[in-house]
Parts: sequence; structure tokens; C-alpha cells
Amino acid sequence: MADPAASFESALALQPAGDGHLVADIPLGWDVRGNPHGGYLLALVARAMGRVVAQPHPLSVSASYLAPPRMGPADLFVEIARAGRRQSTASVRLVQDGIERVRADGTFGELGREPASPLADDVVPPPVPPPELCLDTAALETAEGEEIRLHRRLLLRFHPDTGWLRGAPSGVPALHGWMALADGTAPDPAALLLFSDGFPPSMFEAAGRVFGHVPTVQLTTHVFGLPAPGWVQGRFRTRVRGGSFVDEDGELWDARGQLVATTRQLALLRPPAPS
Amino acid sequence: MADPAASFESALALQPAGDGHLVADIPLGWDVRGNPHGGYLLALVARAMGRVVAQPHPLSVSASYLAPPRMGPADLFVEIARAGRRQSTASVRLVQDGIERVRADGTFGELGREPASPLADDVVPPPVPPPELCLDTAALETAEGEEIRLHRRLLLRFHPDTGWLRGAPSGVPALHGWMALADGTAPDPAALLLFSDGFPPSMFEAAGRVFGHVPTVQLTTHVFGLPAPGWVQGRFRTRVRGGSFVDEDGELWDARGQLVATTRQLALLRPPAPS
Repeated sequence: MADPAASFESALALQPAGDGHLVADIPLGWDVRGNPHGGYLLALVARAMGRVVAQPHPLSVSASYLAPPRMGPADLFVEIARAGRRQSTASVRLVQDGIERVRADGTFGELGREPASPLADDVVPPPVPPPELCLDTAALETAEGEEIRLHRRLLLRFHPDTGWLRGAPSGVPALHGWMALADGTAPDPAALLLFSDGFPPSMFEAAGRVFGHVPTVQLTTHVFGLPAPGWVQGRFRTRVRGGSFVDEDGELWDARGQLVATTRQLALLRPPAPS
Repeated sequence: MADPAASFESALALQPAGDGHLVADIPLGWDVRGNPHGGYLLALVARAMGRVVAQPHPLSVSASYLAPPRMGPADLFVEIARAGRRQSTASVRLVQDGIERVRADGTFGELGREPASPLADDVVPPPVPPPELCLDTAALETAEGEEIRLHRRLLLRFHPDTGWLRGAPSGVPALHGWMALADGTAPDPAALLLFSDGFPPSMFEAAGRVFGHVPTVQLTTHVFGLPAPGWVQGRFRTRVRGGSFVDEDGELWDARGQLVATTRQLALLRPPAPS
């Protein structure tokens, strides 16, 4: 927790390398089994675009995951699509070893402290016990049978009724709980981008690890407000399966219970590797 | 109806003009008050990407609307991000008069005829009377006080309880109904992209035309299956307002009641122009 090299901010560090070109060094610890975490990558590409546009906050970030990135150095190339007074839009490509791995567009502006207004019942935060009464990542790692280094950086707490973590998936592909940065810093829009892919795939609560890997194809997050300090509540639901694709919808509420971001991804269902 | 120049396919015609460069001519009739319709533009940029990738169907298309396009000639520049065996991802920029108006990414693959499986109750189609018992666009045009040429191309039918069309918005920002191409052709994935922004803003059902204009900032549509012939059922809901932004979520079901696409947009609320 006190290791400054483990901070989220340090993991988003970018070195300028010329016109719209930035260099990252994706550090160990922000990976799942050796692959950089998708939410971390969303925050990283947004940070790169944020370095080039005039506005401070990501309002909407939409990423296509083209090829699995690796840990270590990465080149990011940012191009401004439209520079406006109130909003600007940019694109970014993340390249490693000459292969483009992630491509994203982002629209930036200035978020207010005023909370967003939920206009539908289904964006009111569902009841979840406080984080200290939830299941922690030890339960997840027991279920997974291995340590996941990411959880030394990204703290997850799961609703106590999460059946998958007790070996009895509920059959309903939804996960509820809380997220926070292990470095102790308060959540900001970059953290919301991390959290927008922060939970394991909600499909695991449908049927356990029938699917070994659920790689994200496309992920779009809209940020509606600056989060208050404290744990961020998340709900992730897979609503539809078509062929080998599933969606996953997520909502993020801050510690005041205010909706601060929504997210949606399209992901591929992949069977587990033969053991 | 029998005017071939009014067909959706003819409106998506593209002339090759060099490496990844295609030229469109956005025809009158696919506009709302002189501005090209956002769903039409989504279909057009997807068509351009589809001309360059090897796979036949858009699985996911994500567009940023940078500046209002105009009717008439447009240059589209497509770049492949990743060409895969089963999926490919491309980007496209739509440029008019040297100004980039729309930027989009799209992932393409091959959709099956097998229906998508809804895994959540809220993606089961809500009850709506058949199209012939719904309100048609005459009711919309009475409510709007003007003819909208688009509705000679894109047929809309609204749930009979739609209060806004009777001068009494329900207060709930949701619109339900049906969509079809006026040219009589069966829906295909391109039509689903058109339909994904096919209805007026659902905010109009919340409070009437308090907001004169709700321009789309970002629109992402995922396509899960090939639609059956017939009317496509749509539901569009605004779930959250944050500052001057709203989201809008949509689902599209084909005539069999199968979920064939989901869509989400971030839009700006703009007061009506002073009269």
C-alpha cells in the first residue's frame, strides 16, 4: 500500500516523445495472468488523449481491443479529431512491437461536482452491504485457485451473495460490489475508467468458469460526474449472448450513491485452455 | 415508395476514389431539418468500413459526431486497424469541406441466423400493439408542427400511449414502437444501424420539447444477429442526466421478438433556438 511504484498514477506515467507521441511503461501488477488489465488500458489511453486536449476530464472513451498488449514499453500516438471550446475529441493508438493493440476515441470536457440525475429506476444503486461486510479478493483467489497480482492494486469487494465465489454460481450473470484503489487515493475519472472493467466477467456468476477467458472486443464508458472520495459501487450485468459474443453493462456509483459512470462492452466467450 | 432513388441502399452508395478513400453523396430525404440523420450516418460510415474489410457484417460500430455534416458530397477515409480471420476492425473519418464531421471505429465479422439469447428480463421485448394499431409519423409531425422528410424513408410507429405525441408527455423518458424502411426492403444490419438512432430523443417523452435539439456526441451499436423480415421493434430510454449530457439506451428486436442489436448514445441537451 505504501509502495509508491504501485500507485495508479505512477502506472499511468507517460513520457512525451514528439508530436502526439507518448511512451508508457506498463508495469507488472496491472495485469491479469501477464496481460495488461482492460480497464487499466482504458485509463492509459484516456490519459494519453488527455495530455493532448485542452479539457481536463474524459466524458466518453470508446476503445477497440485489437490484439493482447504486453507488459512493458508501449508507444501511444494521439491525434486530435476536433478541438472545441467546451469539448474536444481525440483518437489514440497503442502500439507495441509494431503491432497496434488498442485503438480508442475519447471526448473530453469539464465535469462538475453536481451529481448526475438518475431518470430510471434501474440506475439507482442496488442494496449492497458495506465493503467490510463483503467478500474480498481472497475469496476470488480461492475460487480462481491462484493469486492475481492486480488485486494488490485494485481492491474488489463482492456482494456476500455472490455464488460463484462460494462454488455455486447463481445462474444470473450479474456481479455487485465495491472497488477502490489500493494506493489509498480517492477515485477520479481515470479510476472510473479502470473500474469500468474492474470486476471479473459477470458471466462467471452465470455458470462459473465454463468460459476460461472473456476478452473485451469493444468497451465504451461515459463519465457523468466527479466521484466523491471513498469506495465506488459497481454493478455489472451480461444481458445478451449472441453466438460467441456477450455484452456486459455496468454502472458505477460513488460513495454518496451518485451515478458517476456507465459502461458497456462487447466480449468474446472463449472456452478454457485444455489443462 | 417505388422511387428507387429513395431507397436506403441507394443512399449508402459509395464510389471508390483510391486507397481506402470512398465518396458518398448524402441525398436529400435522409435529413432532419437539413442535417443528415445520425443513424443514417452510422450506417454510411459502417458501409464504408465494410467495403474495406473482409467480413460481411458490422458487429460493433462506435461513432463520435464531431461537427454537423451537410447533405451532398462527403469523403470517407477508411483505415484497417486489424485484419483478422474471423473479425476485423477498421476506422473511418467522414470529411466535408476539409472538416472532419464523424469519426468511427467498427468491428466486422459474420453474424448467424440463430437468435441471440436474452440473459436478463429487461431485454425481453416489452408489449407493444402491432404497428397498424400504433401512432404513425403523422402524429409526430402534428406534434412537431412540421413535415419531416426522413419519415418518407424511415417509417416509425409509436406505442399508442406515447404522451408527447398527444401533447401530454408522460414524464418518463422512454419511447417504444416499430421501425421499417419505407422502400419495402427487409431489415439488414445496415438498417439496424439506421434504426439505432431512429426514434426522436426519448427526452421528448419526459418533458416535451423543453430541449430543442439533442445532438448525439457518441453512439455505439452492437449487432447480435441477422434480423428476420418485418418491422423492427425498438425501445429507447434515457436513464441518466449529468450536467448538459444525457445517455440514451436502446434495444432492437426483430419481428420474431429476437434481440438483434443494442445501442447507447451520449447526447447534449440544447435549449430550443429563440423564435
